[in-house]
Amino acid sequence: METIAIVGVGLIGGSLGLALQEAGFTGTILGVSSERSIASALELGAIHAGAGLDEAAARADVIYLAQPIAGILKTIERLAPICRPNTLITDAGSTKFEIVRKAGELLTGCRFLGGHPMAGKEARGVEAADPGLFRNRTYCFTPVSIADLDAPLVRQFTRWIERCGAKILTLSPEDHDRTVAFTSHVPQLLSTVLAVVLAELPVEKLQVAGPGAIDMTRLALSAFDIWSDIIETNRDAIDHALTVYIDKLTELRDNLQTPRVGENFRVAASVAARLRM
Amino acid sequence: METIAIVGVGLIGGSLGLALQEAGFTGTILGVSSERSIASALELGAIHAGAGLDEAAARADVIYLAQPIAGILKTIERLAPICRPNTLITDAGSTKFEIVRKAGELLTGCRFLGGHPMAGKEARGVEAADPGLFRNRTYCFTPVSIADLDAPLVRQFTRWIERCGAKILTLSPEDHDRTVAFTSHVPQLLSTVLAVVLAELPVEKLQVAGPGAIDMTRLALSAFDIWSDIIETNRDAIDHALTVYIDKLTELRDNLQTPRVGENFRVAASVAARLRM
Repeated sequence: METIAIVGVGLIGGSLGLALQEAGFTGTILGVSSERSIASALELGAIHAGAGLDEAAARADVIYLAQPIAGILKTIERLAPICRPNTLITDAGSTKFEIVRKAGELLTGCRFLGGHPMAGKEARGVEAADPGLFRNRTYCFTPVSIADLDAPLVRQFTRWIERCGAKILTLSPEDHDRTVAFTSHVPQLLSTVLAVVLAELPVEKLQVAGPGAIDMTRLALSAFDIWSDIIETNRDAIDHALTVYIDKLTELRDNLQTPRVGENFRVAASVAARLRM
Repeated sequence: METIAIVGVGLIGGSLGLALQEAGFTGTILGVSSERSIASALELGAIHAGAGLDEAAARADVIYLAQPIAGILKTIERLAPICRPNTLITDAGSTKFEIVRKAGELLTGCRFLGGHPMAGKEARGVEAADPGLFRNRTYCFTPVSIADLDAPLVRQFTRWIERCGAKILTLSPEDHDRTVAFTSHVPQLLSTVLAVVLAELPVEKLQVAGPGAIDMTRLALSAFDIWSDIIETNRDAIDHALTVYIDKLTELRDNLQTPRVGENFRVAASVAARLRM
């Protein structure tokens, strides 16, 4: 890997540029993004130069799509006629099935590897970029076949992701999407609905909200533009995971003051502790 | 207020002792607690001396009950025959109706004022005590009649709570309990149920959990002993608030990919931002 083009230089793309350099990458980092993001990214040192998508496709051996899902799908269409045989295209989209399906259909002229870094913060934009964003975080890759991971350029790229501090986990695109419905999409929607319910309280009652309500509504600050893409590309898995959740919550409500609630608290505390190990 | 006895010198009781002194209180602070807690509290300077409940009732003009709910209810029974006419008894229990009801029935020989500081952290015990725990937090008082707040000793005490940095909110006990069902009890149960649902995923899939799942399962670390009292003394309000929540979550699930979801996100982000003001 000598030249990487990052398409969409925001929080994730900018952080990758900084993290790669901190990890010792001495090749060229191109940024394909809005004029404003390129200017900020250059100032922060996250990229070495701005480029158009055509130039990026001509020069880069790795093209990293760090846009929202709808942007990634559009860029895949634009790259289809111009990507070169030895290029690796990879992405950081929050759902994988639809992206991997489209890439498999259109990017027949080069190699594609779906990816998803389990890292983020509320702040968006390259200004929030952080070279430590991937450190100690899981980074999912979703190859169509495990053999996809053996190609030399793919190995080089995944090795750089490890050098950025991430722990790699390999899942099928379907399995990834089913899992993040539980671990990411349901938590977001729980937070959003909690805030919607609190919005219906008389406004002075909001003063009663303590640290617990504050924690549980942090995700509710998320912007919908990101989430409308996620919901659109993972509707069935989210529907299923929400149904499982609603059933468990209803069960707990119907068993309030039985020993089952205590058992729920113990199981919950143990898995919450494991998530923090 | 010249002598305050804190019954139950843990996180809240210890923090009150430290906060009062930081706010300029120069009277005596007695602690009624386990031998171990008294020793730690003395070492931290949160109290001036340990005492038994009889001695505390004989010496203190304010008795502050900072135990879990069941402990507060028991202490009210024990104080009934020994409290003096000019003593103010107040508490920091998480639900108010049952405590205020019992105090009204038994503490006919002195004055009682229910209270609830909206402050806390996961860590428990006096070792976690923090003089800033109440700062910029709401502190609810739940007088049976607003006139209860006019008694000179009550005014002195609530003034000290303000000097500790808290913002006072007055609610009826019933209104308090209905409100915290939404702002505190439902958030706790949402977090517990999320962790229970995640516990059913294959264990390697937990690696996919990102910062969102971590946030949303923090409350799931809470110990059940505190929560079993809360559930027992606020069952109907929790049942109602959970039902409202389940209905909204079901509505959102059934409307995924309609414009209503976007509207939910906007309302949620706005109330989540207001909670942070």
